[in-house]
Amino acid sequence: MKDVHAMAPTAGRLDLRRVGVSGIKKPLSIQRPDRVVTISASFSVDVDLPASRKGSDLSRNAELLAEVVDSTATSPVESLESACQAIARELLMRHQYATQAQVEASGTYFRSRGISERRRSFEDYKILAGARATRDSNGGEPELHRIIGGEAVGMTACPCAMETAREILESEFPLLKDPSFAKFPIISHNQRNRTRLLFEVHPGVNIEVDRILDAIEAAQSSPTYAILKRRDEAQVVLDAHRNPKFVEDVMRDLLSGVVGRFADLPDETLVIVETVSEESIHKYDVTASHRMRLGELRQPAPA
Amino acid sequence: MKDVHAMAPTAGRLDLRRVGVSGIKKPLSIQRPDRVVTISASFSVDVDLPASRKGSDLSRNAELLAEVVDSTATSPVESLESACQAIARELLMRHQYATQAQVEASGTYFRSRGISERRRSFEDYKILAGARATRDSNGGEPELHRIIGGEAVGMTACPCAMETAREILESEFPLLKDPSFAKFPIISHNQRNRTRLLFEVHPGVNIEVDRILDAIEAAQSSPTYAILKRRDEAQVVLDAHRNPKFVEDVMRDLLSGVVGRFADLPDETLVIVETVSEESIHKYDVTASHRMRLGELRQPAPA
Amino acid sequence: MKDVHAMAPTAGRLDLRRVGVSGIKKPLSIQRPDRVVTISASFSVDVDLPASRKGSDLSRNAELLAEVVDSTATSPVESLESACQAIARELLMRHQYATQAQVEASGTYFRSRGISERRRSFEDYKILAGARATRDSNGGEPELHRIIGGEAVGMTACPCAMETAREILESEFPLLKDPSFAKFPIISHNQRNRTRLLFEVHPGVNIEVDRILDAIEAAQSSPTYAILKRRDEAQVVLDAHRNPKFVEDVMRDLLSGVVGRFADLPDETLVIVETVSEESIHKYDVTASHRMRLGELRQPAPA
Amino acid sequence: MKDVHAMAPTAGRLDLRRVGVSGIKKPLSIQRPDRVVTISASFSVDVDLPASRKGSDLSRNAELLAEVVDSTATSPVESLESACQAIARELLMRHQYATQAQVEASGTYFRSRGISERRRSFEDYKILAGARATRDSNGGEPELHRIIGGEAVGMTACPCAMETAREILESEFPLLKDPSFAKFPIISHNQRNRTRLLFEVHPGVNIEVDRILDAIEAAQSSPTYAILKRRDEAQVVLDAHRNPKFVEDVMRDLLSGVVGRFADLPDETLVIVETVSEESIHKYDVTASHRMRLGELRQPAPA
Repeated sequence: MKDVHAMAPTAGRLDLRRVGVSGIKKPLSIQRPDRVVTISASFSVDVDLPASRKGSDLSRNAELLAEVVDSTATSPVESLESACQAIARELLMRHQYATQAQVEASGTYFRSRGISERRRSFEDYKILAGARATRDSNGGEPELHRIIGGEAVGMTACPCAMETAREILESEFPLLKDPSFAKFPIISHNQRNRTRLLFEVHPGVNIEVDRILDAIEAAQSSPTYAILKRRDEAQVVLDAHRNPKFVEDVMRDLLSGVVGRFADLPDETLVIVETVSEESIHKYDVTASHRMRLGELRQPAPA
Repeated sequence: MKDVHAMAPTAGRLDLRRVGVSGIKKPLSIQRPDRVVTISASFSVDVDLPASRKGSDLSRNAELLAEVVDSTATSPVESLESACQAIARELLMRHQYATQAQVEASGTYFRSRGISERRRSFEDYKILAGARATRDSNGGEPELHRIIGGEAVGMTACPCAMETAREILESEFPLLKDPSFAKFPIISHNQRNRTRLLFEVHPGVNIEVDRILDAIEAAQSSPTYAILKRRDEAQVVLDAHRNPKFVEDVMRDLLSGVVGRFADLPDETLVIVETVSEESIHKYDVTASHRMRLGELRQPAPA
Repeated sequence: MKDVHAMAPTAGRLDLRRVGVSGIKKPLSIQRPDRVVTISASFSVDVDLPASRKGSDLSRNAELLAEVVDSTATSPVESLESACQAIARELLMRHQYATQAQVEASGTYFRSRGISERRRSFEDYKILAGARATRDSNGGEPELHRIIGGEAVGMTACPCAMETAREILESEFPLLKDPSFAKFPIISHNQRNRTRLLFEVHPGVNIEVDRILDAIEAAQSSPTYAILKRRDEAQVVLDAHRNPKFVEDVMRDLLSGVVGRFADLPDETLVIVETVSEESIHKYDVTASHRMRLGELRQPAPA
Repeated sequence: MKDVHAMAPTAGRLDLRRVGVSGIKKPLSIQRPDRVVTISASFSVDVDLPASRKGSDLSRNAELLAEVVDSTATSPVESLESACQAIARELLMRHQYATQAQVEASGTYFRSRGISERRRSFEDYKILAGARATRDSNGGEPELHRIIGGEAVGMTACPCAMETAREILESEFPLLKDPSFAKFPIISHNQRNRTRLLFEVHPGVNIEVDRILDAIEAAQSSPTYAILKRRDEAQVVLDAHRNPKFVEDVMRDLLSGVVGRFADLPDETLVIVETVSEESIHKYDVTASHRMRLGELRQPAPA
């Protein structure tokens, strides 16, 4: 049979950056300390393509995903990112014409969470992972990077509306200025906040996704929970209003938290944060994003 | 050319309820009292199919949509629902084998809104419409129904968390029990609430979509706005917390409001309501839905 | 603490049909003959609400879901629909004011599939399930229904474009009329077809989801596969073009197939089919839907 | 009232790259040569934030969008990208602490299209635009860039499956090797292809979105149309199968086409292309993406 992909392109002879497949869904089993968890993950993989070839051998991508991911049903892997890294590395082996390979994966990740031990239940988070392999032009080992991240939904209460409401209420309810009300929580607007934290690291580096999700939840006004009885519900509301945050605060608190929580990661680790607050007082969202090396983050703040 | 659609089915000879097209996007121009508004609408249309025919003539659906909707660029129609009704009626003309036809349409609808005159801007709502035509078996005029509705996003504050927070705060801040605090707004959780109201009416009946959207916004704890300066923001927060509502309250207040606001509609009008609160204290949504005849709604509540 | 939900409504005293939660995500483990599969499922549950109560006790829904679904991590259930049925039944126990309860669930379901034994891999399907419980007004057992279904993506080739293309090609390539070309496959357009089949049955009835998905794939022009090497790819193309189908054909062939494949199901079983072809020659989709009792489907076709 | 945004951050003193709002929907009226078209557009705008400030003044973003976009209802603008550029420039004026501003916008764009004059109708495309403004550190004019692009859905037929099918069919139907069949179109699989082309240019540069959409449609196997009667449908099928293309071909043909079609654009123009084929023989998509300067694209291909 004619190998149409290996033929010369009929159109302009151009190198192409990324050619691949996306939206391949697979069950991936991960060995956790206490049990095996199975994630329903979605994968995208691609490689570059030289000007000399008409097409990329895409069936190899699907074969490779099947080999690496399907086998986890019987032999669970260490992590989603280690599976991504194995795929990225092997993509370069199977696409000899390619100089780099990318893999991205995401899935729902469940954690047992609760405002108290009696209210625990499985709640949904996102796990995000990826890998990049660059061929060594001297025939040596490819250069590898892995990405590991997560997304958690929590709650924010707005610090600005709270201050303005306080001023209005103090004029309407003069007793509110009594010193005993110093720490009284004032109404504001609150919203679903959706925050992502990702790290790009060297191949040998492992990061538990739970550490990432804990860091995010610690930076929101309050985590949220599936099961809240009356008193619990009021507790979350009190917690959030005693800890009001803009998206800017969520981001800065998260980045500060990363310095303290991830002291084991090297300076060259790339830190990527995205946060979205689905405003309750607007029909639109408020967003912030940032990326920097962990080394920069560790420098003392300018005076 | 062979008319494959008109041939006998190769498989089981079965009547089919609905065969059609969906996701046809079109610009539709509506003549409003003061100006022409153009809606980017998405249409689904279908008819039934007798056991004797292999296929429905779907190209007629696309032709008909083009004829009725494209022409509004130069001759604006009265309303989205009147366009739907014209399409439903004509579907029965062009599919002589069909006994009924359905049309559904939706699009973004902009209204100039603001918490005050100086803060007005265009904000987005949804307009929803549809029509149904049933062939008269005696060759008379088809029976027609039209559906007209809208969706508005607003804000809700939870009445339950507010009461529990009040109890906790009263014990922590005893001064709060002072009679001067009788109307003091207490913290709660608030969320984006998305509510739909639809009416199914006879062909002659017209309802301004703005009346529908006004009814929805009046039933939420507060409308939301694109432009809010500091004091406005606090005002929305105050309004919402002085008007706390469950989804159940939004729905009942909306249905009560319909009785007062739509006294012109006949008793047989079908009223359909759906409301969703995107909870800030949970990762999931809270929902309620209801449908009833306006006549039932008008009956005095049981003692 | 005040039970705000149990208070009388402040607004109109109206019964409400459905009040509940949606989008609760949970891992659900099912015991299959050979292994345990874990589905990342999304649940919606609701009950009705009498005019006398302000709110539904929604925290009970989240608690119940946690009890029934979280426990499958250690004690897998028989099926998604049996979990739904247990939840529906128990909803009536925990909401004593309710007269009916509904549960809906869906998730990605993986099957090991391949065009040949050597090309097998896990491919994604949808599993759909639900249950409905109606309280017996005499205090007896509630009436229960369960819904079980699935969705499979396959391929269709259009029979109409194929016939017209044949006529055009026969005039351009007269040799094509040679009898040796009688079964020669002619070009057409083909598309992703997405088809759902659901059954509503009595509580005692079990249906393997694989039987449902097999029935759907048998009704499309061809199943699709993740791994296709060059010859396999041509084989799928040949199969699809030798089996051209409108959405109407997919639906009728599926309904005919149901009669043969599900002879064990009782006549009163409700059969629901929806099919969507994402047309390659249009920017919009073509759809068909139908619902009927299995008993009607089993009647001989009219002459 | 306290200006909470202008206060010092409570958390780490960090510059933040992007803080803003997303999903603001607005009607935008554009003056076309022959008529005014109104686009239902969605906007995201953001600026950076210095370490010294707790928050970004987000209400200014909503005010600015209202000023620039709402006014087009009475004074249509030249283009979506010129509106984006005006917004980006003004963002730096209103956020004096910011050093850069970004704006992104997208909307459905309708074009009157047809396979023949008699079959014309409005079909939906996407229009994409953006702008970036960077403050001049010496107080001069900000540096501005604008992005203008579009997305068109068309059809592709696979060249590889076609060749393999040809080989199989030639052995099954030997007459097919007759020289008279030299240009006979052989079956393959075809799919919806969704392709984006964007240009990043200097502020003075204008590009009609229709030129962009024409370039994309010329690079697919065939455009698709809303209205196709039997013979038209066969024509599209014939056209696509006589012009089979991988996503790689779509991309290279598009980039080659850009050289010929956009000779008026300067060498430094950044060209961004993304293409996705929603495979009919797979449940997943095939994708390719590329970006390069127009100058590089204009260099003669390597021998």
